[in-house]
Amino acid sequence: MFKNLDQLKYDANGLIPAIVQDIRTGAVLMLAYMNKESLARTLAAGETWFWSRSRQEYWHKGATSGNVQKVREIYYDCDADALLVKVEQVGVACHEGHYSCFHYRLDNGPA
Amino acid sequence: MFKNLDQLKYDANGLIPAIVQDIRTGAVLMLAYMNKESLARTLAAGETWFWSRSRQEYWHKGATSGNVQKVREIYYDCDADALLVKVEQVGVACHEGHYSCFHYRLDNGPA
Repeated sequence: MFKNLDQLKYDANGLIPAIVQDIRTGAVLMLAYMNKESLARTLAAGETWFWSRSRQEYWHKGATSGNVQKVREIYYDCDADALLVKVEQVGVACHEGHYSCFHYRLDNGPA
Repeated sequence: MFKNLDQLKYDANGLIPAIVQDIRTGAVLMLAYMNKESLARTLAAGETWFWSRSRQEYWHKGATSGNVQKVREIYYDCDADALLVKVEQVGVACHEGHYSCFHYRLDNGPA
């Protein structure tokens, strides 16, 4: 079914960063962290599960808001220490109500 | 010109993950890490500078290969602990010769 999850490189806390991208629009929605168990849950459920570093608990994205992320494709990078999860986002990704969490411009452009 | 870089949240090693996306194609190219100094260099140079965790040194992407990333827009997320850098990629992003570092499929799809 899928690669051995032990082949990925997790950090000292057992975490690997997961970039979530909307497969329909190409927009990068958020960056969150998975551990092996949350990745296994993601693969089994077809929806994203993360490890919340602030709450120290598993987090099924959209469980309360309904804004789940339906997983379509998952890739890992050449160092096997980062994930790219392509999803169909239901509703919005950001808890602040924005479509993407990356809505603050850092450089000197507009918005 | 740009927001105070001290407002971003860096990890215990002073790093913040930076997602690099090709602004022309929408492809997510790589995930690498910046510290405040590499972000300042990125803003000043208009090309990406990272901190290499493996080599423990600053890393001007493409300095040897010529495959630089011309920075067009930079965003930070709602937690201010991740960056999205939109670039025009010259050549390929991956040191393995692929356009994107995320060329390994984890789930059970093709490729």
